[in-house]
Amino acid sequence: MRIVLDAMGSDHHPEAELEAAVEAYQLWGERLTLTGPAELLGSRVDPAQVDIVDAPEILGMYEKPAVAAKKKPNSSMAKGMRLLKHGEADAFVTMGNTGGAMATALFQLGRIKGVKRPALSPVFPVRDGSAVVIDIGANADCRPEYLLQFGIMGSIYAEIFLERKDPRVALLSTGEEQGKGNKLVEAAEKLLRASKLNYIGNVEPRELYNGEADVVVTDGFSGNIFLKTSEAVAALLIDMIRNEIKASPVTAAGGYLARPAFRTVSKLLDPSEYGAVPLLGVDGLVFIGHGRSNARAVMSALSAARKAVSRGLMQALRQGIKESLEGSDH
Amino acid sequence: MRIVLDAMGSDHHPEAELEAAVEAYQLWGERLTLTGPAELLGSRVDPAQVDIVDAPEILGMYEKPAVAAKKKPNSSMAKGMRLLKHGEADAFVTMGNTGGAMATALFQLGRIKGVKRPALSPVFPVRDGSAVVIDIGANADCRPEYLLQFGIMGSIYAEIFLERKDPRVALLSTGEEQGKGNKLVEAAEKLLRASKLNYIGNVEPRELYNGEADVVVTDGFSGNIFLKTSEAVAALLIDMIRNEIKASPVTAAGGYLARPAFRTVSKLLDPSEYGAVPLLGVDGLVFIGHGRSNARAVMSALSAARKAVSRGLMQALRQGIKESLEGSDH
Repeated sequence: MRIVLDAMGSDHHPEAELEAAVEAYQLWGERLTLTGPAELLGSRVDPAQVDIVDAPEILGMYEKPAVAAKKKPNSSMAKGMRLLKHGEADAFVTMGNTGGAMATALFQLGRIKGVKRPALSPVFPVRDGSAVVIDIGANADCRPEYLLQFGIMGSIYAEIFLERKDPRVALLSTGEEQGKGNKLVEAAEKLLRASKLNYIGNVEPRELYNGEADVVVTDGFSGNIFLKTSEAVAALLIDMIRNEIKASPVTAAGGYLARPAFRTVSKLLDPSEYGAVPLLGVDGLVFIGHGRSNARAVMSALSAARKAVSRGLMQALRQGIKESLEGSDH
Repeated sequence: MRIVLDAMGSDHHPEAELEAAVEAYQLWGERLTLTGPAELLGSRVDPAQVDIVDAPEILGMYEKPAVAAKKKPNSSMAKGMRLLKHGEADAFVTMGNTGGAMATALFQLGRIKGVKRPALSPVFPVRDGSAVVIDIGANADCRPEYLLQFGIMGSIYAEIFLERKDPRVALLSTGEEQGKGNKLVEAAEKLLRASKLNYIGNVEPRELYNGEADVVVTDGFSGNIFLKTSEAVAALLIDMIRNEIKASPVTAAGGYLARPAFRTVSKLLDPSEYGAVPLLGVDGLVFIGHGRSNARAVMSALSAARKAVSRGLMQALRQGIKESLEGSDH
């Protein structure tokens, strides 16, 4: 298996990536390929443990993703994705800017034949389990047929990655009843209902967090509002509880004793526990991790990519999309 | 001041409403008007403390709101709103079905002249304060000009109800940068920027909860996803912490000592603390509370309505909408 890691992605680049690369070699006994300026990286790795592919161009934080994707063919992202494209790697992992990764992937890899729009599909922690949410922000404006494809790709991902048999697919909406939601949901519902997917109807955020579906389909704007609201409320609540606990010596003592409980909950909310988010639908396995990742979070992203490779996610996606197009007018 | 309360709205009707009506008389020294079947209510109130207006028709839980609004002119909602319409009341408060209340309000009261779409605008608890979010679910599909009007109405509401001077108005979006978000946000941004409102740009859910805006404008679908995600995450998190605390005797002891802290936080998350949600833009003051309301939550809704009446919210809305239309092509 050959995994390529963007050495310049994380806020702590290349330290977090270099540390993870060494750890990966020790853990899995395989050399990782790092893309980034050889000048910067060369002296810092043992060539017996880590490969380096020179990518001298640096993407600026304020560069427009779409422009940078085209104008900098030798960035660490572009170079890494070209290795994928040319069959020299099985997966590409980056902790870099999501917009930049998406633009570069579209430009360097293109889409799987038949795919209308690639989508970001993280695995969310839910009550007693996890669920795939797709799309979480790649496509702010969607058409119903995109949502149908998100359902198809998300279902394959859940089947392979989460080992769910016949995954339950639902639409994120504002009510469970049929006909609730906006026009996009209403139109997508018809397509999903007519598809071969195990479509179970609409779910509200509460049902999603109760684990009532394996795959929750949404447009990228609503999906992103869902993601960011979840993060914001969790952060606010934990802050509030912490402040209230500090308010008196008795509650402070209680908070001290109850620490392990808070630690478990905080861990559940920590994005570094959840690997990375695949960009499904581009013609190659691309995983995007959090910019704030440390080495442990990079390792978690690499694990996710390895799992996807060893279970044949890419082939399953190509096959699934192909089958969905056979006999349809799309 | 004459406030009309739907006696048949809450899940605990008419008990919660009857209890609140008596309490309201004791607290404010004014008789409330209850709408509902006289047969049911008459024997249970003291006519010196509470007025009853007979409304014999009952709305079924499974009736379609739009149909019920037209077919049952003598429901407790329809009757109450007609009192508003005829100038016999200053505000109408209901704990009933939101869809039903909206449909009935549109049918019985109509819209303020010039208003394109009424909107639901609750006050959210945010870090060190509160913020108005508009629309939270009345309009699943919006046009940019609706969002401009939501901004105008929300701004007036924040000024009057929360006493904010020159309220900071923002659009809910998936990034703070101009041009982030979907096409609707992009188009609404232009209108808001060109308006006389104190428009400060886009906010993400995190900025909203940090209190960076007084009024956050959104379409009713995204707003409802925001609301329901907030509620779902808060419920899940508190459950998780509770379960983790129970997991060992030490953390349980800690949790016991820290109880007051959790109680404060739970209170902050309790909808019954936040009165009721006004339906802004219909031609009369309508406040919609939570179906699960107890008498205390009904009192809180009544307080909100009284505050809106005494501060002249309705006149301000009429005036504000009128001014916004003068000199524009709308």
